[in-house]
Amino acid sequence: MTRGTGALCVGVLAWMTVVESGVLLRAQPGQTPQSPAGAPSPSAAYTSGGEMLRPEAYREWIYLSSGLGMVYGPAAAAVAGRPPSFTNVFVNPAAHRQFMATGTWPDETVMVLEIRSSASEASINRGGSFQTDVVAVEAAVKDRKRFADGWAYFNFGARGDRAAPLPPTASCYSCHKANAAVDQTFVQFYPTLMPVAQRFGTVRADYQHQPAPAKPAEGPR
Amino acid sequence: MTRGTGALCVGVLAWMTVVESGVLLRAQPGQTPQSPAGAPSPSAAYTSGGEMLRPEAYREWIYLSSGLGMVYGPAAAAVAGRPPSFTNVFVNPAAHRQFMATGTWPDETVMVLEIRSSASEASINRGGSFQTDVVAVEAAVKDRKRFADGWAYFNFGARGDRAAPLPPTASCYSCHKANAAVDQTFVQFYPTLMPVAQRFGTVRADYQHQPAPAKPAEGPR
Repeated sequence: MTRGTGALCVGVLAWMTVVESGVLLRAQPGQTPQSPAGAPSPSAAYTSGGEMLRPEAYREWIYLSSGLGMVYGPAAAAVAGRPPSFTNVFVNPAAHRQFMATGTWPDETVMVLEIRSSASEASINRGGSFQTDVVAVEAAVKDRKRFADGWAYFNFGARGDRAAPLPPTASCYSCHKANAAVDQTFVQFYPTLMPVAQRFGTVRADYQHQPAPAKPAEGPR
Repeated sequence: MTRGTGALCVGVLAWMTVVESGVLLRAQPGQTPQSPAGAPSPSAAYTSGGEMLRPEAYREWIYLSSGLGMVYGPAAAAVAGRPPSFTNVFVNPAAHRQFMATGTWPDETVMVLEIRSSASEASINRGGSFQTDVVAVEAAVKDRKRFADGWAYFNFGARGDRAAPLPPTASCYSCHKANAAVDQTFVQFYPTLMPVAQRFGTVRADYQHQPAPAKPAEGPR
């Protein structure tokens, strides 16, 4: 899990968050994105050649968590010499609704990892880090009819409009299988999802969470 | 803008992001949260005494940006001795739709600032920072019928279910008025919103953006 890790394992780290309660069960505001004609559009669309089209509306999907400075492996090349990157994770609303109701991910679940650069001083900000430009967009997609492993991983880069699935030999596949708590996803690090998986008993039987030690306080005071 | 700044100015810093293009105009998936009976529920609800109820569904609203380590002022007390905090910003979907279509915020716009602690090492993570427990939840609300200034600010703390508006003397009011690019909101630091405001000409005439200098690369490589 250091050098040579698949690009999608950026997600493994980006999606890490210590479990705590605070699930929102009442509202279901997220709806499937609608086309201008009002017809439902799928969470994932593909070319005739099997390339996934970059999701247009992921910024209006359900936000899961963010990390800072956890980009490495292949993605590290894109951020070399740049400020540390933020990694924002989103999931399509229909899949999120099903997870909140059952603790499981349906087919056509799409998780998008948006990698953004950071900066520290602009306008009135004098410390800490805030998000700047997009470095890369990646995706993890569940589709048992389409992918032999059930899940596939895609890297759209900063501006790519389509991407072929990363090969099954990419380490992200083995890493997600070995370390993810729920169905090859790192639910153990999504604070609003893990309590749901625990309630529905969908956490992998051999999963053990290791609490993170606190770091010294930092940032402006 | 150092000590003594109002708690909501945590938002000022949390919401900072250098402007870049990448607006998503097609999909409108976010819908007004529905009650179990299917009736629309307002973005903001209040007690008979005028206290705002903590929004239940903000984690399913539209995500705008996150920062790390930018908490200070009153909120600093809550994070003293803790790891640096992440600050996640959400806006209710109906207000976001109107902003994307007009570059302006309607009444009943609610922006929620969720402050979470961070950790660096758990499970397979060996560097960088990821989100942990909720430290505090704050809100900025536009309602010209309800608030003399048009906007009011609320601090729910970590688990509070209601909060009175912060007094007009709180520095967050003057700070937002003095520094925010669009209608007392820091749109200049929301990467998907600023291009919209610029296109609709709703950026304050005297606003000038100061680009952030890049910081040295950090984090695992």
